[in-house]
Amino acid sequence: MIAKSMKAVKKTSAGPGLTWATETPTPAIGPRDVLVAVTHAGVCGTDRHIYEWDAWSASRVPLGTTVGHEFVGRVVAVGAAVERTQVGARISGEGHIGCGVCEPCRTGNGHICERVDIIGIDRDGCFAEYVAIPEENVWPVHPDIPDHVAAVFDPLGNAMHTVMAAGVSGRSVLVTGVGIIGLMAVTIARAAGAGTILVTDANPARLELAKRLGADHAWNAADERWPVEARRVTHDQGPQVLLEMSGHPRAIRQGFSALRNGGTAALLGLPSKPVELDLPNDIIFKGATVLGINGRRMYETWYQVESFVLSGRLQLEPIITHQIAFADFDRAFKMMQSGEAIKVVLRIT
Amino acid sequence: MIAKSMKAVKKTSAGPGLTWATETPTPAIGPRDVLVAVTHAGVCGTDRHIYEWDAWSASRVPLGTTVGHEFVGRVVAVGAAVERTQVGARISGEGHIGCGVCEPCRTGNGHICERVDIIGIDRDGCFAEYVAIPEENVWPVHPDIPDHVAAVFDPLGNAMHTVMAAGVSGRSVLVTGVGIIGLMAVTIARAAGAGTILVTDANPARLELAKRLGADHAWNAADERWPVEARRVTHDQGPQVLLEMSGHPRAIRQGFSALRNGGTAALLGLPSKPVELDLPNDIIFKGATVLGINGRRMYETWYQVESFVLSGRLQLEPIITHQIAFADFDRAFKMMQSGEAIKVVLRIT
Amino acid sequence: MIAKSMKAVKKTSAGPGLTWATETPTPAIGPRDVLVAVTHAGVCGTDRHIYEWDAWSASRVPLGTTVGHEFVGRVVAVGAAVERTQVGARISGEGHIGCGVCEPCRTGNGHICERVDIIGIDRDGCFAEYVAIPEENVWPVHPDIPDHVAAVFDPLGNAMHTVMAAGVSGRSVLVTGVGIIGLMAVTIARAAGAGTILVTDANPARLELAKRLGADHAWNAADERWPVEARRVTHDQGPQVLLEMSGHPRAIRQGFSALRNGGTAALLGLPSKPVELDLPNDIIFKGATVLGINGRRMYETWYQVESFVLSGRLQLEPIITHQIAFADFDRAFKMMQSGEAIKVVLRIT
Amino acid sequence: MIAKSMKAVKKTSAGPGLTWATETPTPAIGPRDVLVAVTHAGVCGTDRHIYEWDAWSASRVPLGTTVGHEFVGRVVAVGAAVERTQVGARISGEGHIGCGVCEPCRTGNGHICERVDIIGIDRDGCFAEYVAIPEENVWPVHPDIPDHVAAVFDPLGNAMHTVMAAGVSGRSVLVTGVGIIGLMAVTIARAAGAGTILVTDANPARLELAKRLGADHAWNAADERWPVEARRVTHDQGPQVLLEMSGHPRAIRQGFSALRNGGTAALLGLPSKPVELDLPNDIIFKGATVLGINGRRMYETWYQVESFVLSGRLQLEPIITHQIAFADFDRAFKMMQSGEAIKVVLRIT
Repeated sequence: MIAKSMKAVKKTSAGPGLTWATETPTPAIGPRDVLVAVTHAGVCGTDRHIYEWDAWSASRVPLGTTVGHEFVGRVVAVGAAVERTQVGARISGEGHIGCGVCEPCRTGNGHICERVDIIGIDRDGCFAEYVAIPEENVWPVHPDIPDHVAAVFDPLGNAMHTVMAAGVSGRSVLVTGVGIIGLMAVTIARAAGAGTILVTDANPARLELAKRLGADHAWNAADERWPVEARRVTHDQGPQVLLEMSGHPRAIRQGFSALRNGGTAALLGLPSKPVELDLPNDIIFKGATVLGINGRRMYETWYQVESFVLSGRLQLEPIITHQIAFADFDRAFKMMQSGEAIKVVLRIT
Repeated sequence: MIAKSMKAVKKTSAGPGLTWATETPTPAIGPRDVLVAVTHAGVCGTDRHIYEWDAWSASRVPLGTTVGHEFVGRVVAVGAAVERTQVGARISGEGHIGCGVCEPCRTGNGHICERVDIIGIDRDGCFAEYVAIPEENVWPVHPDIPDHVAAVFDPLGNAMHTVMAAGVSGRSVLVTGVGIIGLMAVTIARAAGAGTILVTDANPARLELAKRLGADHAWNAADERWPVEARRVTHDQGPQVLLEMSGHPRAIRQGFSALRNGGTAALLGLPSKPVELDLPNDIIFKGATVLGINGRRMYETWYQVESFVLSGRLQLEPIITHQIAFADFDRAFKMMQSGEAIKVVLRIT
Repeated sequence: MIAKSMKAVKKTSAGPGLTWATETPTPAIGPRDVLVAVTHAGVCGTDRHIYEWDAWSASRVPLGTTVGHEFVGRVVAVGAAVERTQVGARISGEGHIGCGVCEPCRTGNGHICERVDIIGIDRDGCFAEYVAIPEENVWPVHPDIPDHVAAVFDPLGNAMHTVMAAGVSGRSVLVTGVGIIGLMAVTIARAAGAGTILVTDANPARLELAKRLGADHAWNAADERWPVEARRVTHDQGPQVLLEMSGHPRAIRQGFSALRNGGTAALLGLPSKPVELDLPNDIIFKGATVLGINGRRMYETWYQVESFVLSGRLQLEPIITHQIAFADFDRAFKMMQSGEAIKVVLRIT
Repeated sequence: MIAKSMKAVKKTSAGPGLTWATETPTPAIGPRDVLVAVTHAGVCGTDRHIYEWDAWSASRVPLGTTVGHEFVGRVVAVGAAVERTQVGARISGEGHIGCGVCEPCRTGNGHICERVDIIGIDRDGCFAEYVAIPEENVWPVHPDIPDHVAAVFDPLGNAMHTVMAAGVSGRSVLVTGVGIIGLMAVTIARAAGAGTILVTDANPARLELAKRLGADHAWNAADERWPVEARRVTHDQGPQVLLEMSGHPRAIRQGFSALRNGGTAALLGLPSKPVELDLPNDIIFKGATVLGINGRRMYETWYQVESFVLSGRLQLEPIITHQIAFADFDRAFKMMQSGEAIKVVLRIT
């Protein structure tokens, strides 16, 4: 029995905070959609931007939207034309909903569809008892993967996409910025066969944690001597790979400057304004390759995440620091703001 | 008989101009070097920077240096340990002289050696009756290739490296900036199987010439409407490849903005100062690949240049507009400054 | 108005020949399918195998199947859950119908789905007034592309997939076997920027046609001296790319033997039994890359075919030698058997 | 002081065995060569072929040749034109001596030079107190790497080249054949981030060792049921990567058959005669990529070997089972034949 209304966390006014809405209509589904009873949902840095209502959120998120885009749950209803998904299946889902007809969508590159809608941003999301997504976006969760891990496949996928696109096997890697996704990138890079792993961040606790997850060296980004040291520990040439996870202009410039000639930089962190780059020295003379990373490859990245999780080679428990009750969602944001929590998973039902 | 002294064009004082030096000592050669009697030398935009003595030249080129780095000639003497090059051979040469011991040099990537010396910039070059280079840097010229073409293998190699690194076969291509190397890139891209070719530049004559060489559309970079038009003629998605040949901040930004999601940008043009980029929209969300291009791959690019030249599919005559006598070198620079000439080849001997 | 029954060409008995069936039921469609009124259909070598009922056909094709898999037509009905395709649209379609749930299907590699069904082989095809396919498999045809060309996008896609996977831009290419797809590969390779193109075949008329389409050299495969000549015209090293289109053991071995060290071989032709290879000399010592090519990439290859066709750089008219009335289908096979025809397009309605 | 004559192990007659020659002239060096006092040398399977004088050896190795091609030692003399190597340096060396002038040699692909000479096979090798090699082929050994490991960089490089060319990061890997190089491939693949590792071999002791080095599953190649099991443990699709290290026709066919659609097979093992392959099912329909692997990339592979060895992530001690005195060389071959030893290193001086 699916209730007509449900509890949900919504953005209802143009300012900080989110609203606990207990009588939100349960989403309707079209013939190709599935309805999912959400059991766990991850809280993302993007959710925090919406919570804090920064300039980006204000320009993009319509008031009234149910937020949240990382989840696991059970299928409770399927549309008339759904063929491959059964009611009862435990699933997660890709939150980027491509148009399905453009060249990227039709060539395995739906993550860069120009008309993508993201759940929890452009349409209703998963901080709710129910969420509707197209069957196309369903990811069946392997029975050996626990719920709190399945709930964060989306950000694990961001980290995985960055690491695998750059190619770390046997190469030295610098991760600039070890927030949630940076930390995930460290444990993935270690499991994916990286050589020496270096990290920088402004937060000493995160640096310590990065070392626990497999980083060989961790430096405070404010210490201007770290690039010299980074070069020393990478055969006097600098790291072969840069995974830029911070979005901070200084880190971006330091990262490019440290990068080895012929190296690869994968950019995931989003600077909030234009960044000045010294193109000749940072990219051109260096013969660097720079990769913009967006979302997850559909669905190659999801297969990779599943494989690595099942291999037992990732350390995720130190990153998923808290699981709390749905109704306490506001505390999740406060703990992220204070730095007390890293990744928080909400127990929805 | 090799004379003890020779005619050469040198940078002798810290200001505009170059000096005609008739009694320059003929270069000495070490055991692994060859001495080449230069017959033809190409004049490069870099030579013009040194002629005009801009900030970059003043910071890098030692006074007293013989300039010039594009040439063809005949080997007249070889060092004691030279094994594979005969006196009499007609050769051109790679002007980037790598250290030979670093990782890039030992992995076919000597073009990004950190300790590279470039002839005509860091050591004596080829605007002279004789130039000395390591045997390692010799490129034997195929007998079917005429001298004035062999003399410009170096810049053809820059264009070839850019085009082949980006990969144009069957893809739409935007070339921002059609100076010497941009024009070479147009004829190469056409021969290499590009789809629709678009170019932008501020110079109407160059735009016309680009069309003659194979561009399908050519727009004045100052006309702000061209990106709309560029999108229209590329299946409403923008070009798949950007070859940035201008070094102008506006062109760089326009080029990134026009680039299709998932596209590839190859950067060769050198901006004279830091450039502000909108990383999220220009690179990250777009899932773009950006390649810094430096010099020529040793020696893959040289083989490619030879193959394309021999195929007869390149149009180089409209680009090499003038061949003039060595002693008239000053006129070459004046014609380049006025726009009367595009590529000028000096007849040395 | 869609008639309840239709004309179709079917395999009805276990022996040579095909049957003209005038009262075949019009296909039913499911909620995600479209029904297409076929206007033109291409006759493929595979159809000829079924016509001749060789061992492969007998082992795979169920009696009663409507054959044919290359077509263009108009959508006349759509299923209830079809969202992006309109009645009236002129379309072609990918005949490989993947399962949609396996890893290849979900990563843009549906062409290698293990459970693929092919229309005209595993289920009813397009030598019929109507054919049903999933909306997912629809390819909207650009208005500038004529029907007889749109009808052969499927085999053009085989050739395109082979050429683009191997990568021919600026490289010398050997095509062993210039039947329909080999000839298509020649004109595509020329347009895609190949260097020297060499072909071998046993049929002198096909060799002549290959030269018209852009081959630089064409040799009779039976002449044992051609590999020596092939080496001579490829800088004494052999071709850099092999496109194997014949499936003949001798041609396969000759092709590998001729291939340059470090070269790429793309295999499309299907030998009818196991082939003995000298792995050390043909592949291992040579450092060769060998690519198995199956179908078309979904749908990257289709975009490439459309782009090349629209560019006007392909020569297809000399390959599509005949268009004949549907009822004369038997003559199409006879003309292919005699060598009178190369590609035949049936005018269905 | 360099003695005029030395001890060496040579092939002196056309039959089994090798000769202990105490008065062999010390090699002369040319202006670009170095002379190395060998301290340790590895015994390779190829040396065993020469020892046993199989058909291949008899057809290639001239009588009188000093054998051996894996070594470490100290430079004791340098030619007049040697610039970058000092007397006293501890070095290993690449035993493939390319011609230096062909396209592969000039593009970082000297491992596939058509005119390569291999030390210990085509010219005198390192089972001797002194060996001469070109300076170009010198590999300076990092001080943290012990001699017995530096002595086997050559076969480690074969394994590394195979693993890195195939690309194992995050992918399931099948190694068919765990002799010396297969075992090295297992420990490298584990360190390079492979997912599930499967191995097959006929030798139970080797299978056990492979598991110690990181293989997840190890099967007897003679047990025809292993492919079913291999499929079961790789998500019911088969391994994504095949590293063929055996050269046995059955293993090659089993490996191809097990390989996942879209997978990559890297072939290093050398079958002694032509192998029958089912090209359609094993390669073509599967969309497989097959890579021939020869030697080591110059010198990219050497850098990779150094990095992995220094990382401490390889387990080499269980593979290098014996170090014995030079004069006992015959015992080394006997121990390899009996299976008592895996890798034997000779202590030369």
